[in-house]
Amino acid sequence: MTTYKRMVLASRPQGHVVPENFRLEEVPVPDLKDGELLVRNHYLSLDPYMRMRMEDVKSYAAPQAIGETMIGGTVGEVVASKNPKFAVGDKVQGMFGWSEMGVSDGSLLRRLDTTHIPLSAYLGSVGMPGMTAWYGLTQIIQPKEGETIVVSAASGAVGSVVGQLAKLRGCRAVGIAGGKEKCDYVVNELGFDACIDYKAGNLKEELAKATPNGIDGVFENVGGEIFDACLERMNPFGRIALCGMIAGYDGDPSPIRNARFFLTMRLSMRGFIVSEHMDLWPQGLKELGTLVATGKLKFRESVAQGLEAAPEAFIGMLKGRNFGKQLVKLI
Amino acid sequence: MTTYKRMVLASRPQGHVVPENFRLEEVPVPDLKDGELLVRNHYLSLDPYMRMRMEDVKSYAAPQAIGETMIGGTVGEVVASKNPKFAVGDKVQGMFGWSEMGVSDGSLLRRLDTTHIPLSAYLGSVGMPGMTAWYGLTQIIQPKEGETIVVSAASGAVGSVVGQLAKLRGCRAVGIAGGKEKCDYVVNELGFDACIDYKAGNLKEELAKATPNGIDGVFENVGGEIFDACLERMNPFGRIALCGMIAGYDGDPSPIRNARFFLTMRLSMRGFIVSEHMDLWPQGLKELGTLVATGKLKFRESVAQGLEAAPEAFIGMLKGRNFGKQLVKLI
Repeated sequence: MTTYKRMVLASRPQGHVVPENFRLEEVPVPDLKDGELLVRNHYLSLDPYMRMRMEDVKSYAAPQAIGETMIGGTVGEVVASKNPKFAVGDKVQGMFGWSEMGVSDGSLLRRLDTTHIPLSAYLGSVGMPGMTAWYGLTQIIQPKEGETIVVSAASGAVGSVVGQLAKLRGCRAVGIAGGKEKCDYVVNELGFDACIDYKAGNLKEELAKATPNGIDGVFENVGGEIFDACLERMNPFGRIALCGMIAGYDGDPSPIRNARFFLTMRLSMRGFIVSEHMDLWPQGLKELGTLVATGKLKFRESVAQGLEAAPEAFIGMLKGRNFGKQLVKLI
Repeated sequence: MTTYKRMVLASRPQGHVVPENFRLEEVPVPDLKDGELLVRNHYLSLDPYMRMRMEDVKSYAAPQAIGETMIGGTVGEVVASKNPKFAVGDKVQGMFGWSEMGVSDGSLLRRLDTTHIPLSAYLGSVGMPGMTAWYGLTQIIQPKEGETIVVSAASGAVGSVVGQLAKLRGCRAVGIAGGKEKCDYVVNELGFDACIDYKAGNLKEELAKATPNGIDGVFENVGGEIFDACLERMNPFGRIALCGMIAGYDGDPSPIRNARFFLTMRLSMRGFIVSEHMDLWPQGLKELGTLVATGKLKFRESVAQGLEAAPEAFIGMLKGRNFGKQLVKLI
């Protein structure tokens, strides 16, 4: 291979993301300098946070630059190395973005052991999404046995882990997802106590039925009316880990209408970015890796084929069309 | 006196509170049983939380019952006693409500020393409002020297204390209040670094000017668009003590429109009720009492005359017409 493909941001979205916001480019494979290595990416991770980076707004990270490779986490294999710490054939996780290949000096790469954990899981349950779930649940919600924990986007990469970890801690886990198929999966495969189909049209009533003792913790991935429905059910001193507001990512504002419950129920809420808490990753990944390797933490993937399919897969994910962790298979 | 007057809740407000929601009654002074004492109330405290109690909704306290004396804090003097712990002439603080008199077994009364602190201050800076400010600032916002703290309703009983305590801790204190007169008072008398008149019509621009280094802590008394304007200026890891949402008390919902900043700036917010943290009152009241007695903590009062004036004073307070702590003088 003398060239490889990458997907760059062609323009910022005006409201909804459209395929024209992206542009596929073919670029030459660079020569390696001493200390560098070349990675062929096997999987690209698509995640909701990317939507916010596409905007030119004040946020926790600089906006994605126009004309540059879309950011993103990847797993792949070292195909050439002038770095003594990495050998050809090593499996590695990196942040090479929406790209078939990437060059690194090795400093931000993590070598992966795929003996018991499949490569793609390092982009999901044993990667950033899994750690996001672990951090928000264990560090912010701090669930106690017998409490009720609700998580939105429950069949997704983060939500599925939140509920399963809550169950392992003796909690009642209630998911919210879109559609009967996803809800059946959340209850029957992942072992949640209940899952509410927000598309079925009676979210508030179903949530009340599924949380007879109220809600003690919310892991919020979505925002908007789903979050408002949860706020109405909160018990005093409830905790909210705010991880995402997909409802607000795609151009629509997502106000919190039931703000009064923060006061009346003395709720606490904290937004977080898991990459700012790297000190806890070894602890979290150890738990998550062990659970995946022993089959106690289940996950599901939606896999798009080829870099060309990434924009549509990303747009679909923002609309909730994926089922489980959204990946793009590059090889 | 063989009778005294009290104000009862006649009906629940439909939207805005109106005078007809209250009814003045004249009732006989009861005979004291052993262990009881009779208090003549000198001042009644009017506070925003009362608005929420008038509604029949799920909250941290049971709703105010129709036909019962409106709840509220009072300070007054013991005028008869069959309780060995209290003598006629003792100054006491109680929760006798909107009433000229009250009978107690002494269990929830606090004896007051008015040598250096005026009686009415025990309903303000050295009472519940002062403790609310103290708790939210020191326990939730936890300001560090050099940080910028913003407080809404800055000329009020709570807000005025928040800013003065923040200044004493080496912070930049920025108030938000309604009207030039209140803002001048907040800066010139209370010593805030700046105060923004939200009625002047360019809240966002003025707030940006007054907080050149962003906002690290918000003590929120109001909610609505004022809170949204603050959210836009928050620095990473900002803290929000949510004390009140007057904007939402009087029937109007007050959504949080800038919810995305909780995520992008990793903010934390906690609603609180100061009466649930009685363990900290001795510590807080000691600081507040010393500051008032030594003239380092200033305050201002709006005093309505007579129980008959209480409904209009309360309605005025909800609309921001008071200036400083709203009291009703009963004697």
